[in-house]
Amino acid sequence: MQSASGPASLTVMSPPTLSSLFDLVGDEMALVEEWLKSNLIDDNLFVEDLLRQIFQAGGKRLRPLIVLLSSKASAREAGKLGRLHIILAVLTELIHTASLVHDDVIDRASVRRGQETINKRWNDRIAVLMGDLLFAQASICLARIMNPSIVGIYGQVLGDLCSGEIKQMRQQFSTTVDWKIYIDKSIAKTASLFSAGSHSGAILNGCSNGTIQALKDYGLNLGICFQIIDDLLDITGDAKETGKAVGSDLRNGVVTAPAMFILQREDEPAQRLRALINSRQVAQNEGVEEALEIIRRNGGIDESLALARSYAEKSTGNLEALSDSVYKEALASLTQYIMTRTA
Amino acid sequence: MQSASGPASLTVMSPPTLSSLFDLVGDEMALVEEWLKSNLIDDNLFVEDLLRQIFQAGGKRLRPLIVLLSSKASAREAGKLGRLHIILAVLTELIHTASLVHDDVIDRASVRRGQETINKRWNDRIAVLMGDLLFAQASICLARIMNPSIVGIYGQVLGDLCSGEIKQMRQQFSTTVDWKIYIDKSIAKTASLFSAGSHSGAILNGCSNGTIQALKDYGLNLGICFQIIDDLLDITGDAKETGKAVGSDLRNGVVTAPAMFILQREDEPAQRLRALINSRQVAQNEGVEEALEIIRRNGGIDESLALARSYAEKSTGNLEALSDSVYKEALASLTQYIMTRTA
Repeated sequence: MQSASGPASLTVMSPPTLSSLFDLVGDEMALVEEWLKSNLIDDNLFVEDLLRQIFQAGGKRLRPLIVLLSSKASAREAGKLGRLHIILAVLTELIHTASLVHDDVIDRASVRRGQETINKRWNDRIAVLMGDLLFAQASICLARIMNPSIVGIYGQVLGDLCSGEIKQMRQQFSTTVDWKIYIDKSIAKTASLFSAGSHSGAILNGCSNGTIQALKDYGLNLGICFQIIDDLLDITGDAKETGKAVGSDLRNGVVTAPAMFILQREDEPAQRLRALINSRQVAQNEGVEEALEIIRRNGGIDESLALARSYAEKSTGNLEALSDSVYKEALASLTQYIMTRTA
Repeated sequence: MQSASGPASLTVMSPPTLSSLFDLVGDEMALVEEWLKSNLIDDNLFVEDLLRQIFQAGGKRLRPLIVLLSSKASAREAGKLGRLHIILAVLTELIHTASLVHDDVIDRASVRRGQETINKRWNDRIAVLMGDLLFAQASICLARIMNPSIVGIYGQVLGDLCSGEIKQMRQQFSTTVDWKIYIDKSIAKTASLFSAGSHSGAILNGCSNGTIQALKDYGLNLGICFQIIDDLLDITGDAKETGKAVGSDLRNGVVTAPAMFILQREDEPAQRLRALINSRQVAQNEGVEEALEIIRRNGGIDESLALARSYAEKSTGNLEALSDSVYKEALASLTQYIMTRTA
């Protein structure tokens, strides 16, 4: 990716650190954090405690970062943002957080970011309601922006998040390889929100259709790349860093890129992996460990990395339509960070 | 309530039928139904089937009726509504429907309106996602109305729905009688949405603060009345008509007005009822039947009816601030219908 012939502005020689990117939007991110913290107040102390648990569990605030950097990269007055951009960043994080709380119910997850999930610590019912509360707060933010295009975009995102999960659920333990379905699912689950966040700021800025489309595509490709890396980390990641057990997806019958690269072949490893999934042996420790070993030894990791890289390259390519700025460079660096992240 | 000395316009001599009220808003309700049906289309056939199941299970469309009647009762040009009033009615029904789908997960309900619930027919995970999808559609409607006051009102409703359920959950099997908490919970669970629906149309109509406040209070009092009757029907209702088993609330440890009127006393029936609830015997058939019998034989029904009636009277009283019209009369009739409903 770091070819000497590439456009100079998109070439980053050393792997970027996330904190250097956050430094570019420090003031705005402080406002986002302040807004999120004001959500921690509720007239019910129990609810207040739950909200604190959810927001203080951390999270990298990657989506607000995308909103703020892309808004600055497309701002008329270099780097100048308004109140609506901050609300956009908050909205994007709220939707993400709400969907995580409900995903944990759906996946019966007990650990997230190294902490007990709400459904584990309390129960599914509390987690459903807390997710609803966060979605409700997101709705209020969305409506406050009062922009019909942005309403349409985020409305689509909310629908995509649900339909993506339902599609995934309906394909549990299926070993049929369909790359279109896999990419569509990655868009619905992840890239749709990335893309909404990356180009809505440009809409607020009154940018040209070309700029808006470039940032929309950037976010879409970055989001697909992010999801592929996420699927990879489920297999190669360090449980301590990722905060969840290795092979969780396979245990739940969710078949992603690393396994699909094996399953699309007809050789012996492919047949064995197919058998382990079809028989649901992957839901057990022994079965999942054998499956992970097959994936690791037969190129599932490298091929997935190459697939992720192809989307990373598309996303940096999309940035070429933008005027040069430190924020444009930061967006390219963000792609690099996402390609090399370990958690 | 039908005193000869009452204001003529608020006196309805025969019990109203719901269909005569729907006739007053026939054209508008057809548009609402059309809108709700257009939600039945999804690129995923499984999701489409689920949406059909949810919307065709019926429901009385009471909340859209409240929105349309109160909008007409406060319209500048008698009875003339615009597109935003239709969206308001759709939004109100979507929020109601979404919350029912999630409530059934939370209450572990298996039957609703005489049909299997989504969580029973499929599972909790599908039901969480389908509720999210409906809330997402509601968010889009809310944002489309582009009115900051209405966003605030419905944002509060969404928060109230969650906090009301959480409060209820935290008080399961508690026999402490606190009427303020009971009324607050009824507002959060039910009356908040009724009230949003009853006065947002007047905001769109640009009415005076007096008219807006009157319709707001009307909806609030009507909603509290509705919830008390709902709690009563859990005890006195015909399972075939209400579509759910008698005593479901008590079985789940949800203590409502009919039980509270007994529990606030110190006599022998109160002590026995308290024991049945504290020991969780009400979760079993024998225990719940004994508890229901105690409530029925000791005035729990009549006292609850009187409480509901006091809120019904307040709600019709609130209407006095409005100019006379057939729609104002219809709103008064609606209160009567709600007091006498059997399902």
